[in-house]
Amino acid sequence: MSENARLDRFYSVIPAGGVGSRLWPLSRADAPKFLHDLTGSGTTLLRATWNRLAPLSGEQRIMVVTGRAHRAAVEDQLPELADKNVVLESEPKDSSAAIGLAAAILARREPDVIIGSFAADHVIGDQRGFARAVRQAVAAADAGYIVAIGITPTEPAIGFGYIDCGDPIEVAGAPDARQVRSFVEKPDLATAQRYVEDGQHLWNGGMFIARADRLLDQMRDSEPALVAGLEELAAAWDDPATRGPAVDRIWPQLRKIAIDYSVAEPAAAAGHLAVVPGDFDWDDVGDFAAIAKLQSGGRASDLAIVGPNARVLADASSGIVVSQTSRIISLIGVHDIVVVDTDDALLVTTKENAQRVKSVVDALKLSGRNEVL
Amino acid sequence: MSENARLDRFYSVIPAGGVGSRLWPLSRADAPKFLHDLTGSGTTLLRATWNRLAPLSGEQRIMVVTGRAHRAAVEDQLPELADKNVVLESEPKDSSAAIGLAAAILARREPDVIIGSFAADHVIGDQRGFARAVRQAVAAADAGYIVAIGITPTEPAIGFGYIDCGDPIEVAGAPDARQVRSFVEKPDLATAQRYVEDGQHLWNGGMFIARADRLLDQMRDSEPALVAGLEELAAAWDDPATRGPAVDRIWPQLRKIAIDYSVAEPAAAAGHLAVVPGDFDWDDVGDFAAIAKLQSGGRASDLAIVGPNARVLADASSGIVVSQTSRIISLIGVHDIVVVDTDDALLVTTKENAQRVKSVVDALKLSGRNEVL
Repeated sequence: MSENARLDRFYSVIPAGGVGSRLWPLSRADAPKFLHDLTGSGTTLLRATWNRLAPLSGEQRIMVVTGRAHRAAVEDQLPELADKNVVLESEPKDSSAAIGLAAAILARREPDVIIGSFAADHVIGDQRGFARAVRQAVAAADAGYIVAIGITPTEPAIGFGYIDCGDPIEVAGAPDARQVRSFVEKPDLATAQRYVEDGQHLWNGGMFIARADRLLDQMRDSEPALVAGLEELAAAWDDPATRGPAVDRIWPQLRKIAIDYSVAEPAAAAGHLAVVPGDFDWDDVGDFAAIAKLQSGGRASDLAIVGPNARVLADASSGIVVSQTSRIISLIGVHDIVVVDTDDALLVTTKENAQRVKSVVDALKLSGRNEVL
Repeated sequence: MSENARLDRFYSVIPAGGVGSRLWPLSRADAPKFLHDLTGSGTTLLRATWNRLAPLSGEQRIMVVTGRAHRAAVEDQLPELADKNVVLESEPKDSSAAIGLAAAILARREPDVIIGSFAADHVIGDQRGFARAVRQAVAAADAGYIVAIGITPTEPAIGFGYIDCGDPIEVAGAPDARQVRSFVEKPDLATAQRYVEDGQHLWNGGMFIARADRLLDQMRDSEPALVAGLEELAAAWDDPATRGPAVDRIWPQLRKIAIDYSVAEPAAAAGHLAVVPGDFDWDDVGDFAAIAKLQSGGRASDLAIVGPNARVLADASSGIVVSQTSRIISLIGVHDIVVVDTDDALLVTTKENAQRVKSVVDALKLSGRNEVL
């Protein structure tokens, strides 16, 4: 089977939520991270995600879960997206609700469906490596596992979670898949260094593949009320007369919890979680330092420039400039700098402080300046 | 005589030229340094200069030499400025032409006039100390000297020129005045430290006081063609029928040379130059580091914020933000930073690199981006 042949029972799910607070003031409530081109490729992260998945599941088998406010922007990016595959959230309820609702809707439509959930705002550099990993993950999912795709670490990153790998599982079509011993939250540097050296740890790429019914069963173990709500919603979903009232009644009551806690960690503890190592370039583009790295190919001496109309004049400077204006931006003698220039907000920080950008967003919220968030 | 009584024969001259390239993008061709409030006092530097001089010479005896393009802005700042005291340059010709033309015009109107030339864009902190120094300088000028006002150094500044002081001169009314041995260009740090320690060196504040005819005689020694042109212009000046043609014919031919070279240095060499030490706070506000220092009272840990509508959110940051917009400016973990935010240009540098801003302006000129200069 060619690497690009479709996987018949496979359905892609793209949860497109999350503003990306660490990318403020580029990412906003009305212009979240997935709607930006952060790699200079000419396509948004959402569109690039679609382009990766379409060859695997087919365009008619990609479901997007996003906020009502983003419907128009998402459909603009993805004109091929089928109406039945647009799931709109009336308010954000975190990843368990988003992915769980997609699973419940799809399981009703197609009981033996295998779903894969892929963030709308990550960057993957190698389509073929990605496709190989998904194929193995689908094979392991068909055998009953909940499957994560883990990324072989290239450095002791402290911004990612890690997956501790156990023994190989014996599943046809998934020769590289292994049991997962545990999920590990973002480690400190010494721990991260140990993980990279021991060869037993992978980055948690936030990609999960499972039979939809298996995923819901696993979630039901830890979050029975949440899954009951999601299944009630799913039962009402495909009838326009019942969907709206069900959403109004049920969605606001759903518990907000990340799928890592409702599914992945309990599945790992119960021996139901497998991981397929993905030996491809991957980044969650979590902050401006990550964008700088992607843009400059890792050369710290470079100045990365993002923005179609950016006009930058730099002297003895390095770091990253993100411009959404056409202003002249002049840098003199600033190193590892981060400058993000938008119409109504300007950020100046350093790559080292890139993770702290979220604290500014929090401060702006507290001071009521929501117009720039 | 009270310190604020007028000096009858004294006439103030304010050459208001010079863009202030090191203050780009705040200072521009169409918004030069002297039209900005850089101290947060609520008045422009030009207006503050006027306010210092009016009590000494009277409002009717202040002449402003400026570019044609700045006439409206200057008159807006100085509504009391008499028409006869506005001297417009058709193109910049440096300080010898600007001050020399004022001297030639005033000498024709009032042969024994004593003029004082004071930059439009310096900051002086002590009106009474300034007035005391000017009074002594006028007394020494009346005795035939060309007189500089020097500033007692408070630190080994490398951004200023220095005046090497000799013996006291014996002139009534000028008890502190001394001969000038020589002018010294901006020194290196070790030399500057020696100057501050020896007590014989003063900062060159760029203030010159002399009888108008003496000043022109001195300039004629080194620049006879320039002075001939200026006197021809002055002869045509006060008749509207002759001024325009004379300006068109003569002004473009005038040599561009700073008054330090045409008058001060030769006068010092000839023993004609005296200096009155001024023991008052003075700054030429030559770059953004100087503004930061003025604003923060010298505390390096502070973040200075300039701009009536500045909206700055800073975390663990120091330096200076100059805002001409109403954008939110967020700083995180940047130290000694300089951020200058205008509608069409943004500068990010450090206090240490503040003097290098001029090089950006040069680069912009070379690349033809004059619209932001």
